[in-house]
Amino acid sequence: MSGKKERGLLIVYTGDGKGKTTAALGIVFRALGWGKRVAVVQFIKGKWKTGERNFAEGLTGLTFLTMGEGFTWESEDVKRDKMAAIKAWETAKDLIVSDDNDIVILDELTYVMKYGFIPVSEIVSALINRPEKKHVVVTGRDAPEELIESADLVTEMAVVKHPYQKGIPAQKGVDF
Amino acid sequence: MSGKKERGLLIVYTGDGKGKTTAALGIVFRALGWGKRVAVVQFIKGKWKTGERNFAEGLTGLTFLTMGEGFTWESEDVKRDKMAAIKAWETAKDLIVSDDNDIVILDELTYVMKYGFIPVSEIVSALINRPEKKHVVVTGRDAPEELIESADLVTEMAVVKHPYQKGIPAQKGVDF
Repeated sequence: MSGKKERGLLIVYTGDGKGKTTAALGIVFRALGWGKRVAVVQFIKGKWKTGERNFAEGLTGLTFLTMGEGFTWESEDVKRDKMAAIKAWETAKDLIVSDDNDIVILDELTYVMKYGFIPVSEIVSALINRPEKKHVVVTGRDAPEELIESADLVTEMAVVKHPYQKGIPAQKGVDF
Repeated sequence: MSGKKERGLLIVYTGDGKGKTTAALGIVFRALGWGKRVAVVQFIKGKWKTGERNFAEGLTGLTFLTMGEGFTWESEDVKRDKMAAIKAWETAKDLIVSDDNDIVILDELTYVMKYGFIPVSEIVSALINRPEKKHVVVTGRDAPEELIESADLVTEMAVVKHPYQKGIPAQKGVDF
């Protein structure tokens, strides 16, 4: 990877605070405004409705795939979750090398590593060897050190204050 | 402010890391997907083109206003900047109390307080006294303590790694 102007960044949004997926969606918002083509793979979120899925439906230049099976920390079927993760990762690899998009967002990919579904080294290797101009955005808590080392931009979203601490439930349009 | 389900949150994205405005744009993305009406006031950004402005143009349910005069730390005309900030804040106050939107994003509002253009107490008071169901999102570095105390959700975007440290310039679709 070289060149001063056009260079694909590996961006990581991690940490326990809110705003990781949200910031990735903000990149979609910006990128579409420049006519760039974006692909999103959501690794955890399943088929339930979210504002982002609804909004994504009508948009040109955006491929939006929810490939998860829900939240694995509540899961009763780890095998099913692992299969879903592996399938999503195969799709993600295709999107990363494809000429059909400029930016690939891998939402909540860190959990796939955290739960040991796919080795960190395999994922980091595919990310490092991406096409030179491709931007890739990874979100999720507990980004492994190997991923952070390989990234160009890493922001940690830290909790200062969380509404659930006050007993306020997740809100449509803000949280999902 | 009371009620368990429908409650407008005061959300603050602060810190030195990247992703604050980006996360606010992600909230726009989600909210429009639920048919909510959103108003954005950008307090610092001036008339130069950004991906978010381009994309915002065609969207129903979104009012997108860039009311800044550029970045004040480079400014040669502080009086002009202050006038712009005051004008933007007047608009923001109208949007906050208006029934025409559900969510108001005040992008980089913290700088208006940091530079002393508008007193913190005046801004925080208007935010606290917003309509009960209105969500307001404030972004920018150095959020004052008074604002943080009044907020429901505060995330600090912390720099772990920044691409400018490596000499990589800002990228279209990612940074603006």
